Amino acid sequence: MAESHVRRRSALRTRLREQGLDALLVVDLLNLRYLTGFTGSNGALLVHAVDEDRTVFCTDGRYQDQSARQVPELERVIERASALALAARAGKDRDAYGRTGFESQHVSVDGLDALAAAAESVELVRAPNLVEWLRLVKDDTEIEALRMACAAADRALADLIGHGGLRAGRTEREVARDLENRMLDHGAAGRSFESIVAAGANSAVPHHRPTDAVLRAGDFVKLDFGALVDGYHSDMTRTLVLGEPADWQRELYDLVAAAQAAGRAALRPGAQVRAVDAAAREVIERAGRGEQFSHGLGHGVGLEIHEAPALAKTGEGTLSAGMAVTVEPGVYLSGKGGVRIEDTLVVRDEGPELLTLTTKQLMVV
Amino acid sequence: MAESHVRRRSALRTRLREQGLDALLVVDLLNLRYLTGFTGSNGALLVHAVDEDRTVFCTDGRYQDQSARQVPELERVIERASALALAARAGKDRDAYGRTGFESQHVSVDGLDALAAAAESVELVRAPNLVEWLRLVKDDTEIEALRMACAAADRALADLIGHGGLRAGRTEREVARDLENRMLDHGAAGRSFESIVAAGANSAVPHHRPTDAVLRAGDFVKLDFGALVDGYHSDMTRTLVLGEPADWQRELYDLVAAAQAAGRAALRPGAQVRAVDAAAREVIERAGRGEQFSHGLGHGVGLEIHEAPALAKTGEGTLSAGMAVTVEPGVYLSGKGGVRIEDTLVVRDEGPELLTLTTKQLMVV
Repeated sequence: MAESHVRRRSALRTRLREQGLDALLVVDLLNLRYLTGFTGSNGALLVHAVDEDRTVFCTDGRYQDQSARQVPELERVIERASALALAARAGKDRDAYGRTGFESQHVSVDGLDALAAAAESVELVRAPNLVEWLRLVKDDTEIEALRMACAAADRALADLIGHGGLRAGRTEREVARDLENRMLDHGAAGRSFESIVAAGANSAVPHHRPTDAVLRAGDFVKLDFGALVDGYHSDMTRTLVLGEPADWQRELYDLVAAAQAAGRAALRPGAQVRAVDAAAREVIERAGRGEQFSHGLGHGVGLEIHEAPALAKTGEGTLSAGMAVTVEPGVYLSGKGGVRIEDTLVVRDEGPELLTLTTKQLMVV
Repeated sequence: MAESHVRRRSALRTRLREQGLDALLVVDLLNLRYLTGFTGSNGALLVHAVDEDRTVFCTDGRYQDQSARQVPELERVIERASALALAARAGKDRDAYGRTGFESQHVSVDGLDALAAAAESVELVRAPNLVEWLRLVKDDTEIEALRMACAAADRALADLIGHGGLRAGRTEREVARDLENRMLDHGAAGRSFESIVAAGANSAVPHHRPTDAVLRAGDFVKLDFGALVDGYHSDMTRTLVLGEPADWQRELYDLVAAAQAAGRAALRPGAQVRAVDAAAREVIERAGRGEQFSHGLGHGVGLEIHEAPALAKTGEGTLSAGMAVTVEPGVYLSGKGGVRIEDTLVVRDEGPELLTLTTKQLMVV
């Protein structure tokens, strides 16, 4: 991992110089993890725009040993108020840190006052989303973590079905717990979000939370879940039928599957994110179901389960190779049932790489 | 629940009037949950200082049905950018919302710009920690949730031991997972934080994360874990011995137990939080182990696993009846083993109410 962190800090330094900054004070814990590999719950990083040797890491005493293991290559300061300690550090060396950026999308209004007092005559400059911008395009280490997370989810679902875990009589909650335990069996550190298991009419609720509702023969069962590996989140939805599907279920499923395929096919470097959304949405609108596809097509995924870019009607910007995104159209017939099909993929020049490998044929269990 | 939310909003209105504010824009999701019972992942609340009928709730379309169920008594607006929508709402009625407070400890520097633009000529006033101040003293509904969370953890540990789940040959990770599953069996919605299971020398690491290290006869096993019920967190640590304890283990255990008892005895309304810390710390210092008790004595617990007040050397303020806190001294002998004993308690006039009921006798399993 250390090599990729060195590379990421180097890319950030280039960006800081382009912005005319001497340094960046990183306080967001995910950005901190991205730049250093540190996984503790308190810390900050002062990244110098030119000199890696002037980059300083800070955390508190609980993480003394852990930070020595995870961030051996950087100078480390141990102080509970990590961001303040690093602001004060910058303040003591105005020549080196004269214009220091801060993450204005994360630092609170009160927090900035405290930082400014600690930084003394150093100028604190708004510098939002610099690390998030780097995080948009995943490097090989990140994609490998996403691949492992997606594999844990694929295997857990295969196990669940293989062991008869999806059957009439079980509750949504039981299925969710079984599925989550199987992800842990396959190397996940945890679930990447609260699993959705939605049976029958509940499948028409896009973000249904598992209840004690019982699965019944003939039901749609919608499973939206993911595994967490090395801090990276997988995200997959499959909708199955318990027993023989009715005609309306096949029809609905085929429609969503066609839209999902169209969305995947539209994933290419340079594509407008809203055009990707439109490619899938058109399929559903042509079938007269546009109103029943009530959310965006997908989102970026990485250290956060939802991150940029948003593949949505109102999304801004274009795709680049190496972005990891979900494609997840759904059609929801209120009171009756719904279908969503979702993959996690990496945008590639040669066409998207699919990370969630579970079949998208309508599974009948 | 609705009644307690009405009462909390009423208490907040009193506080707003004392501060000379016409309203408060609440954006923190835990504060929002505290004031309304809403459990979704996006939302905001504009609380009017005088008129409950001018209090407006906002969330996005995903939570339309859920918010109608959870917050039926308030006007609801459906809008993705909830805080902005409510700021704009205030901006349209300057007479009613002329001086509107915002949570300056939560709103980011960039976020404030957007709010100010939306609020037009309404003055946005820094108003940090108003809801957190109310949350310091728990009401009966909250204490009941904490009680249930603590009971789920107590029962899970009893089950784990009763079913032979703490035995030589198991890994820390297996024990953690077993314990967490048993909390779910007893009604927890989840764990309140990543469980600590630390065997042998690992027990000397205050915040050890479970590994594949195997439990062995003669080991200390330190278990620090909690359950989540209705959004409230329990927190308990017990340290056991696998098989017959050695003399040094008994001695260390008795020392920490005596310090923990002293800390509990010091919990009374009006006590300085640092005096409570000192009461326990003195016991350990008198035994010449002060250096090996490397953290604070405890912390408030509620909708967050760590919240105010901090029972620590540098803690500020005094206790009040109804505060829920942990008391958790520990002594850690590096490379050898450590003991921590932790309860969750409620400060009461008649002496603290213990919520974590598992024995603090040295358990030998």
